[in-house]
Amino acid sequence: MAQEVSSNKSFGGVQKVYSHESKVLGCSMKFAVYTPPGDGPFPVLWFLSGLTCTEANCVQKGSFQQSAAAQGIVVICPDTSPRGIDIEGDNDSWDFGTGAGFYVNATEEKWKPYRMYEYVTEELPSVCAALLGDKANMAKQSITGHSMGGHGALICAMKNPSKYQSVSAFSPICAPMNCPWGQKAFSGYLGEDKSTWEAYDASKLAEKYSGPKLKVLIDQGSVDDFLIKGQLLPEQFVAAALKNDQLEVEYRLQEGYDHSYFFISSFMKDHIEFHAKFF
Amino acid sequence: MAQEVSSNKSFGGVQKVYSHESKVLGCSMKFAVYTPPGDGPFPVLWFLSGLTCTEANCVQKGSFQQSAAAQGIVVICPDTSPRGIDIEGDNDSWDFGTGAGFYVNATEEKWKPYRMYEYVTEELPSVCAALLGDKANMAKQSITGHSMGGHGALICAMKNPSKYQSVSAFSPICAPMNCPWGQKAFSGYLGEDKSTWEAYDASKLAEKYSGPKLKVLIDQGSVDDFLIKGQLLPEQFVAAALKNDQLEVEYRLQEGYDHSYFFISSFMKDHIEFHAKFF
Repeated sequence: MAQEVSSNKSFGGVQKVYSHESKVLGCSMKFAVYTPPGDGPFPVLWFLSGLTCTEANCVQKGSFQQSAAAQGIVVICPDTSPRGIDIEGDNDSWDFGTGAGFYVNATEEKWKPYRMYEYVTEELPSVCAALLGDKANMAKQSITGHSMGGHGALICAMKNPSKYQSVSAFSPICAPMNCPWGQKAFSGYLGEDKSTWEAYDASKLAEKYSGPKLKVLIDQGSVDDFLIKGQLLPEQFVAAALKNDQLEVEYRLQEGYDHSYFFISSFMKDHIEFHAKFF
Repeated sequence: MAQEVSSNKSFGGVQKVYSHESKVLGCSMKFAVYTPPGDGPFPVLWFLSGLTCTEANCVQKGSFQQSAAAQGIVVICPDTSPRGIDIEGDNDSWDFGTGAGFYVNATEEKWKPYRMYEYVTEELPSVCAALLGDKANMAKQSITGHSMGGHGALICAMKNPSKYQSVSAFSPICAPMNCPWGQKAFSGYLGEDKSTWEAYDASKLAEKYSGPKLKVLIDQGSVDDFLIKGQLLPEQFVAAALKNDQLEVEYRLQEGYDHSYFFISSFMKDHIEFHAKFF
């Protein structure tokens, strides 16, 4: 069972952090849950964070609580990788290993505990359903995220038709097979056979998605260094989605914004209101 | 001249951090400036932070940018003490020395560089006037802050009649002469003669304030540990202000809120709109 780590009243609701023992990951994990004022049951929005982040970044800098309170939405922020399991080299890079789980289920023997995909789509939803009881309506979930977490949100939604009512992302890594971050992560966690990579690549999944019509909102800052360096490649996802009638994508290039939480917080209200429309 | 350290677009405006060489403090200092979208000139709101904070805390966790953009207000966040000047013992406590300047001009020889009162009321406003030019209307300033910074805001406003159009505070230290934090700071910076302490005690200043009518908004969380431990003593300030017709105080005890930035961000919009009324 999850243990409460902290609790702070925020915009009439409560921002909590919990820890629990993850069976899937084999370690203790923290996650953050915001519950809006009122009795519920409330729909649930997942926020997946980016490289180097924990469950804390969006809670402190994302400015989602005000809009989540206004719309009556529970917001859950998981961590970004297993913690403290001590695999050789797991702290050598900021973009691989600790803080960089990439929301895949690793198949390479050495990295087998890295099963963040199963963790965020199955184990943690079960833990939260038990924890939140009548406060949360787990039949109404949506998902969003930033950068690596934007990649996570897009693939979780497309790999699980009907599980999420809608999906959005802030500056997502849209084609990990074709960018340095994704190639490093996928070769490390999944091995060199690129056919296995496609199951976790949003642009590849967008070619094949055949579930119910899925609404997608993407915001991208125009002066984002990682966009300019070719790590994000939103044009590849948008091009694939345009050819698929089951994907309805709104892509917004936001003039002058960068990759930071200042960008995320500026458009968080729009994303929460976007998801609220489909609950 | 101030040097730009960082710049991030936020809610249509720009959040910058600068560094400069402070003559008053004899060291390099950082400060943060948010400018809303548009040409200005904009009125200026100062936010003074609490113990252990830097210029960064409120910028990242205070959620003021959205309301400052909507109201067209420049927000400036100074640091909380001189930095890197290496006085013996300045890093021994979290509530004295570095990160704990208490917005006084020290008179004790050893702590003479601690002149945060002069720094935030005189030197930094001059630096910002030169830096911001036509963007800022320095004839229209107001001031707010949190905890030690709430104390700072109250004393700066009452010691400088007409300089600030209005003042507000989140969980301020209201009677530093009568609480452990204040007694430690004042005896350290000002020496043992308590008659010199009164010039920096908001409750004492509230007895004597005789400037133009001053509007004061104070928010205080009801489950704030430091309230319960007697560090804040808002009742002493409110009692003194009630007897002074020149002070018009709205004191709000916010049920269930604590001392954190979750509390500050929840009511930041109210404070910005409060100050906007008097510009």
